[in-house]
Amino acid sequence: MSVTAAKGFAAAGVTAGLKTSGGLDLAVVANRGPAKSAAVVFTSNRAKANPVLWSQQVAADGVVEAIVLNSGGANCFTGPQGFQTSHATAEEAARALGVSAGDVLVCSTGLIGEQLPREKVLAGVRQAVSSLADDAAAADSAARAIMTTDTRPKTAVRSADGWTIGGMAKGAGMLAPGLATMLVVITTDAALGAGELDAALRAATRVSFDRLDSDGCMSTNDQVTLLASGASGLAPTLESFTAALTELCLDLARQLQADAEGASHDIDIEVTGAANERDAVEVARSVARSNLFKAAIFGNDPNWGRVLSAIGTTSAEFDPYAVDVSMNGVRVCHAGEPDRSRDEVDLTTRAVHVLIELHAGPASATLLTNDLTHDYVHENSAYSS
Amino acid sequence: MSVTAAKGFAAAGVTAGLKTSGGLDLAVVANRGPAKSAAVVFTSNRAKANPVLWSQQVAADGVVEAIVLNSGGANCFTGPQGFQTSHATAEEAARALGVSAGDVLVCSTGLIGEQLPREKVLAGVRQAVSSLADDAAAADSAARAIMTTDTRPKTAVRSADGWTIGGMAKGAGMLAPGLATMLVVITTDAALGAGELDAALRAATRVSFDRLDSDGCMSTNDQVTLLASGASGLAPTLESFTAALTELCLDLARQLQADAEGASHDIDIEVTGAANERDAVEVARSVARSNLFKAAIFGNDPNWGRVLSAIGTTSAEFDPYAVDVSMNGVRVCHAGEPDRSRDEVDLTTRAVHVLIELHAGPASATLLTNDLTHDYVHENSAYSS
Repeated sequence: MSVTAAKGFAAAGVTAGLKTSGGLDLAVVANRGPAKSAAVVFTSNRAKANPVLWSQQVAADGVVEAIVLNSGGANCFTGPQGFQTSHATAEEAARALGVSAGDVLVCSTGLIGEQLPREKVLAGVRQAVSSLADDAAAADSAARAIMTTDTRPKTAVRSADGWTIGGMAKGAGMLAPGLATMLVVITTDAALGAGELDAALRAATRVSFDRLDSDGCMSTNDQVTLLASGASGLAPTLESFTAALTELCLDLARQLQADAEGASHDIDIEVTGAANERDAVEVARSVARSNLFKAAIFGNDPNWGRVLSAIGTTSAEFDPYAVDVSMNGVRVCHAGEPDRSRDEVDLTTRAVHVLIELHAGPASATLLTNDLTHDYVHENSAYSS
Repeated sequence: MSVTAAKGFAAAGVTAGLKTSGGLDLAVVANRGPAKSAAVVFTSNRAKANPVLWSQQVAADGVVEAIVLNSGGANCFTGPQGFQTSHATAEEAARALGVSAGDVLVCSTGLIGEQLPREKVLAGVRQAVSSLADDAAAADSAARAIMTTDTRPKTAVRSADGWTIGGMAKGAGMLAPGLATMLVVITTDAALGAGELDAALRAATRVSFDRLDSDGCMSTNDQVTLLASGASGLAPTLESFTAALTELCLDLARQLQADAEGASHDIDIEVTGAANERDAVEVARSVARSNLFKAAIFGNDPNWGRVLSAIGTTSAEFDPYAVDVSMNGVRVCHAGEPDRSRDEVDLTTRAVHVLIELHAGPASATLLTNDLTHDYVHENSAYSS
């Protein structure tokens, strides 16, 4: 059900002709209300795509009627013509829905630096709005229409006490949110205002999508959108809503990790004993971005020296001779020296757990990443994929 | 000739039995004087190998008699036992040479987290000291003895006005100095004191080795050593010496780039029009560390969107819609929009030039990097290479 699981939402996914494959490539999600509250977080990349520049204006007042998403082109570094395409997309959807264009978000994903074929996009918008439905099939079409190199749609639903949150996500490469390109749409029928939604969304993304760093590359188009219809008539506490939202975001983040381009391992890097959470995240991210570490995991090689050398490039508080490193439960490094034999470590599992104990304080964090594989190189060296 | 090109130096490379291949694996370079001045720069990795910890003490007073280098093991994260091995190595060389152990540098390279076989190292030191010679063959043996995954030795010589600088280098992976593992020994017969050598070496490395970022991974063992014998009896100006030293360091840096593990392209990333040099280097390094950009170059794909998305993650001063990007002479992006066709760009050459014009100021910098290839993944996923 994903985005139509919560009451008050309709969705559609259609073929606008933007993908050379001829598959579904344009989605619309509309909020039927009664409330039209929204919160959005955007890529922190300073080179923002045109749909992001458009959507930032739309999101400013916390009111959103609908969101249009297309694959087949990022509409990034396409200048005024590209911005006009995003604007025209919102205008077309607004006309068809009978709402204001200033309340319509736009998201795009695909190749950077090419203009979208505007007439195809606008025709797709009209087709999508006319086929909006609140059933599971419509939500599934929408989730498929935003896929690029994704091999499967990503959806999740959480329900509690009469209210529901549902979401869909796409993303397989340029996957270090803040960047290429993760799009997420989450809907809820909880009766919460834009301020509460914003607080909940920031809290949830901080420990879910922001902790996903598959390939270190930040997209120009990332956008996580949360729409609330209030249709359940129920107003959960911010605490319980944030907890459910965080769980749903983590579920989607794990689906993104599992479908990352070319990956053969899903790696959780858990850092404990950090002086503070910032240090824990910095250490985990430094390891997650080490190509040598990532290639070693691809080769099922518990090369813990590459973990420690990556930690050494951070500004985190630590003593190299206090650090313990475990891989899939085997402590291979204790207090900065060899501990149990590398031969005891089994890395043939898809899921890999690297535990780094800094012994420098009380804080911890877990980052989700992937290995560096032949398939990653292959997929990303193919001509302008 | 490399390290024996300058008057006053002798070298040797021997087989100590540290490499499983049975090849040359231990080198000694000795300064016969009359002067024994030296300057050394070390990895900025905070997880420093034992030989680095030892050598930092030795280098502090600017007096160095000799340097011992081994491949076949990094002696990093090997605790007190590993430090004692570095210390014993210096003691053994000092005894054989009739000098103080406090004037003997030690460098190691190879796998992190394994103890070196101390007795083999010490026997190798005795053998190397007894075979020291000032000819080309000795220098060649030394340059080969420090190789790990290098496919060829790297050497360079510059002469001017009666004085000479010669050097050798190793490094093929973990190649983002400040990191795995670049070792460089440079000798000169110019009559310069330790302070002048230090100033010249820092100036030269700042724009040569520090501008090499093959795979973003910083070694725990990097060390660049400059030894001066004064045997020419000539004292060049600091300016002319620094210019020659910089040229030699750039020559060696380019040889490291050309032999980087698995690389199929040598990429120069030139940034012009930056507000300041720091910005220029930050922008170039961000692009050099983008796996998506590196994989695209491997695929001969002029995917300039990946260049701009990497620039967008920096804190450098720039306007996305002022940036020009050229690849091998073809401007594919002008003022943040598509310019000439991607199809005009030929990336089948080994050498690739990416020019990024920020139009934000007068500063510029060039960074040397490589592409991300199947061979890189293959070499670095093999068991604990």
